[in-house]
Amino acid sequence: MRIAELSRRTDVPVPTIKFYLREGLLFPGEFTSHNQARYTEAHVRRLRMIRALIEVGGLSVAATREVLEKMYAPGMSVIDAAGKAQFAMTPNVRPPVEDDAWREAGEHTERLIERLGWRVRESNPSRQTLTSAIAALIRLGQTEQLKLLETYARAAREIAEAELSLLLTQTDRDALLETAVIWTALGDTVFSALRRFAQEDIAYGSGETAGDTPGPDQAEAR
Amino acid sequence: MRIAELSRRTDVPVPTIKFYLREGLLFPGEFTSHNQARYTEAHVRRLRMIRALIEVGGLSVAATREVLEKMYAPGMSVIDAAGKAQFAMTPNVRPPVEDDAWREAGEHTERLIERLGWRVRESNPSRQTLTSAIAALIRLGQTEQLKLLETYARAAREIAEAELSLLLTQTDRDALLETAVIWTALGDTVFSALRRFAQEDIAYGSGETAGDTPGPDQAEAR
Repeated sequence: MRIAELSRRTDVPVPTIKFYLREGLLFPGEFTSHNQARYTEAHVRRLRMIRALIEVGGLSVAATREVLEKMYAPGMSVIDAAGKAQFAMTPNVRPPVEDDAWREAGEHTERLIERLGWRVRESNPSRQTLTSAIAALIRLGQTEQLKLLETYARAAREIAEAELSLLLTQTDRDALLETAVIWTALGDTVFSALRRFAQEDIAYGSGETAGDTPGPDQAEAR
Repeated sequence: MRIAELSRRTDVPVPTIKFYLREGLLFPGEFTSHNQARYTEAHVRRLRMIRALIEVGGLSVAATREVLEKMYAPGMSVIDAAGKAQFAMTPNVRPPVEDDAWREAGEHTERLIERLGWRVRESNPSRQTLTSAIAALIRLGQTEQLKLLETYARAAREIAEAELSLLLTQTDRDALLETAVIWTALGDTVFSALRRFAQEDIAYGSGETAGDTPGPDQAEAR
C-alpha cells in the first residue's frame, strides 16, 4: 500500500509517519520509484505499536526507538529481549539529590526486596524510581505510610503472574514479545485509571459493592 | 528563615523557589524589607510537596498548581478536596481518535465498571485514560489480554482500601489531605517500580520465593 493508505489504516497523519521513518522508529518501505514506496501489513502493525507506546504509554520518541531496538535485536531470547525493552520503558525520574532522605530510602528499597525474596538486579532502573518515591515520603514525614509498600508489592506480584500466564498462551515469538512490551507500557496507565476508579468508589460509597459494608470510621469520613 | 536557608532545607535551588513563587505554586513569604522576605516551616512543607509532585509524580507545573489549588480551596470537605485534586492528577492522555476501536473500547470500560459495581462518575477523567489504553490493545489485536483488566481492578481495589485505612489514622485535616494527594501521585510510580521488580523476578526465576513453585509452563519460559 502507499503511504496515504498506511495513514488511513492507522490514523497516523502522513507527516507523522515520515517523521517516524526519519527517526528510525519505522523501517522504510520498498521503493517503487524515486519518491514512492510501498508499505506492508508489518508497517501497519509497527505503527500501531508506536502509537500505543507514545500516545497511551506516554513514552518519548527516543524511549520508543530504544524499546523497538531492544525488542527486535537479533539473536536474543524472548525473555532477554523483553527484559531489555522493560528497562528502556522505566519512567524517567529526575537524577536524585543524594541527601539523608535518599540514603535512608535506598535502605528501605533494599530491605523490601530482601523481605520479598525477589531476585532484582542491581542494574534495574526501577530501584532508583522506587527509592525516589520513598525519599519524597521521608522528606514529607510520611514514614508511617511506608507499610503500604508491602500491599503494593503483593498486588504487583499478582498482576505480573497473571500477565505471564497470558503471555505463555502466545505461540508466536513476535506476538509474545509485543504482548509483553505493550502490557509493560500500558499496564501502568491501566492501573492508574483503575486505582482512581476504586478511590472514587470507596470515597463516595457504593451501595452495590457487596461485602464492602463501611465500618464506622469510613462512614464518618464521608 | 531567609530564602537561602529555605533552599538549603529543601534542596530546591533559589532560582527554582523564585520560579515557584512567580508561578503561584508557593505562597509568598512575609516581607521584612523591600527585597527580603521571611519564610516559615509552612514554606518548607509546601516546597517538599511541590518537589514530590513534580520530581517523583511527574506532574507538570500547571498540574501541580491545580492540585494545590484544589487541595487548599476553602470550605471543602476533605473527601471533596481530595477528589478534585485527584482529577487534576490524572495522567494526560492525548485527545483520542474516535475510531471504531475507540468506541468498542468505551463499551469495554462501561461494562467493566458495571461488572465491578463501582460508582465512578461520568466526569472522572480516568475513564478516558482507560478507554485509550483498551483502544490501543484492540488496534493491536490484543483483545485476549483484556481479561487482565479484572486482575488489575482487584489489585487496584485492595491497594485503594489499604490506603484509605491508613488515611483514617491521620487526625489532622491538612496531613490527611497531603497523604491522600501524595499517595495518589506517588502510588503510580511505586506500583510501576514494583511491577517491574516482580516481572524480573518471575522472568529470571527466584529460588527464595516460597510458595511460588513454578509450574511446567513457567519453567519452560526460563
